[in-house]
Amino acid sequence: MNLPPIERLRARIALVGAPLCLGIDPDPSQLPGELPRNLEGVEIFARGIIQAAGPEAAAIKINPAFFEAYGSAGWAALERVRAAIPDDQVLILDAKRGDIATTAERYATGIFDHLGADGVTLSPYLGEDGIAPFHARPERLLYVLARTSNPSAETLQGLAAGGRPLYLHVAEWVAERWPEPRVGLVVGATAPRDLERVRAACPGPAFLVPGVGAQGGDLDAAVRLCHGELAPGLVAVSRAIAAASSGTDWQEAARAAARALSARMQVAGATLEA
Amino acid sequence: MNLPPIERLRARIALVGAPLCLGIDPDPSQLPGELPRNLEGVEIFARGIIQAAGPEAAAIKINPAFFEAYGSAGWAALERVRAAIPDDQVLILDAKRGDIATTAERYATGIFDHLGADGVTLSPYLGEDGIAPFHARPERLLYVLARTSNPSAETLQGLAAGGRPLYLHVAEWVAERWPEPRVGLVVGATAPRDLERVRAACPGPAFLVPGVGAQGGDLDAAVRLCHGELAPGLVAVSRAIAAASSGTDWQEAARAAARALSARMQVAGATLEA
Repeated sequence: MNLPPIERLRARIALVGAPLCLGIDPDPSQLPGELPRNLEGVEIFARGIIQAAGPEAAAIKINPAFFEAYGSAGWAALERVRAAIPDDQVLILDAKRGDIATTAERYATGIFDHLGADGVTLSPYLGEDGIAPFHARPERLLYVLARTSNPSAETLQGLAAGGRPLYLHVAEWVAERWPEPRVGLVVGATAPRDLERVRAACPGPAFLVPGVGAQGGDLDAAVRLCHGELAPGLVAVSRAIAAASSGTDWQEAARAAARALSARMQVAGATLEA
Repeated sequence: MNLPPIERLRARIALVGAPLCLGIDPDPSQLPGELPRNLEGVEIFARGIIQAAGPEAAAIKINPAFFEAYGSAGWAALERVRAAIPDDQVLILDAKRGDIATTAERYATGIFDHLGADGVTLSPYLGEDGIAPFHARPERLLYVLARTSNPSAETLQGLAAGGRPLYLHVAEWVAERWPEPRVGLVVGATAPRDLERVRAACPGPAFLVPGVGAQGGDLDAAVRLCHGELAPGLVAVSRAIAAASSGTDWQEAARAAARALSARMQVAGATLEA
């Protein structure tokens, strides 16, 4: 934990050569056949995927819901998974928290101080009160939801407000209010044109781009978005790596899938520079 | 746990005579002087306030951030606090979760099945995908954030979209999409005119109204909002009860404050009926 998270992130991206973020969302019903479909299986799987594919990734993104489903025992497993992640890695907790004042401060305590995450995803719906207590922790990475990758994202995020969609308002507000690379935006890869609009309006913030792989997002567009001067962007991939095989070779298959994705991202990035 | 939550809620409101919801947000730095400022103190305080003031309240709302701050040990304390709540009470977890698909399903598993909460607060930002997996649990209460009580709520929620503010879009969308009393709205008491607009547009859903008491919200307006034909609304009060005294009489003071608030709500409700 020597370097600040943003510097560690730059170093990891340079080391692995691609902005690949490994997503860990272990659904017990989707585990490889050899693992028990309970918390034990979830923990073995999370640790196994991180061990196999983590070295190929610039960062690791864990969704706490898959542990919180088991209450305190699940959180204890999450703490053990976190402890097994090497110090030179970058851990983003994909918690999408959105609460205010003291409550947000207590979430920040749990996520940053107690669990030791380097970054967190946050909801913008409550405005600055929901972001500021997390921002008060020096150096931690914040990713505010702007345009998400799910099918119903449009309902609210696409509403026209003053001639532009809500997601663009959110992106511009975040970029203006906290003009630092460590305060970034979540923009899904499933709507490439929306993403280009966000990038054009907000060249500064670090992007976290989910939706590539199982959700069908555009990998080239995602890499293009993460290719900035200021901030080190990340393209998050979960199922396309974690579910590469449901057989006994699930770790080898995950490593191979991560390598293949990393190579595709390197090609896409090289094309941009050419 | 005999009756469905919405029926238990109606029964509790009838029993205590007021729509008082007891908010539990135990900040260790604000505990009474005799309690240790750590997780042990947080648990003793939460249980003590519920024991003292719970019988005066129609429902109890716990914010998990104050337990999650301590990781797995905090969640274990939350589970013990939950186990100490009587079966005829209604427990709402003020988790403001906002995630999609399988992830939302895993949060629902943790909050409803594992912790045994009767209801949950949810963020609308991801659209239907963030609500539907919670709604799929029959009978549980859902409260979707519409107009929150915090100072910066306006930034996004007040944006004009098609001639009306975003919070009204959210309220109307929720009321139309899930026209059942068990799918309600969070509308803060700090902006009474906004609340009247929401109530006029959405007479159906159950309201959960925070912001009365320490946040300076309008109690009469809050009671007015919760006074509907269809759905049993709740007015949430946290600090005005829990922080009524920091001395050794904190439990007695909390009970007295809850009784006084309940009496004021009964008067406000009676005025509406007169």
